[in-house]
Amino acid sequence: MDNDIELVELSASACTAHHRAVSDTMDILSGKWKIRIIGELIFGKKRFGELNANISGIAAKMLSKELQDLEQNQLVKRTVLETKPITVEYELTEYGLTVTPIINAMANWGHQHRELIRQKS
Amino acid sequence: MDNDIELVELSASACTAHHRAVSDTMDILSGKWKIRIIGELIFGKKRFGELNANISGIAAKMLSKELQDLEQNQLVKRTVLETKPITVEYELTEYGLTVTPIINAMANWGHQHRELIRQKS
Repeated sequence: MDNDIELVELSASACTAHHRAVSDTMDILSGKWKIRIIGELIFGKKRFGELNANISGIAAKMLSKELQDLEQNQLVKRTVLETKPITVEYELTEYGLTVTPIINAMANWGHQHRELIRQKS
Repeated sequence: MDNDIELVELSASACTAHHRAVSDTMDILSGKWKIRIIGELIFGKKRFGELNANISGIAAKMLSKELQDLEQNQLVKRTVLETKPITVEYELTEYGLTVTPIINAMANWGHQHRELIRQKS
């Protein structure tokens, strides 16, 4: 009985780092917009208006806030070009690009899921 | 000029399937709890009480609802054991296990992020 308890405790402690790491990631990429925005920027730099047009359902104010959060976490870089009128461009930083495997894993799973639903119907 | 527009359109259409797939995944795994619950079950089957104890901050009612959603999407299997009192166990289905690459990508990124913060401070 003591042995059982010890096993459970060992396994729980082994899981902790994994769960903590997943939680950290969820905290930084929380909500559906950040992942969606990064998904847009994987294909290259975009202007604010482009992002707003491409991400259906997001309000400009929310997009602006989410981009600020991503900038603060150094995932996104904002560049102001001295055009007339000025152009504001957003792109992933090198660090932002490290999120790509998560987005790709999600895209792969989504593809498979859609295929599964298609086959069933 | 015409060529530019065509290029933009081609690239936009190539992105659509990717974005749609990511959105599908976000819809099914939305909120922070589902990913967290699947993360718990990756390490094997768990009783309701264990899940409730291990996932800090979740209310029993919310856990119950999230498990039902996961069951409906065939990611989680619920088994009632005829013990006294009865035991209800949850485990990932084979399909639920296919979400593992997403969780692992998140765990890896979270580890790296924590390491980066540690180095900076």
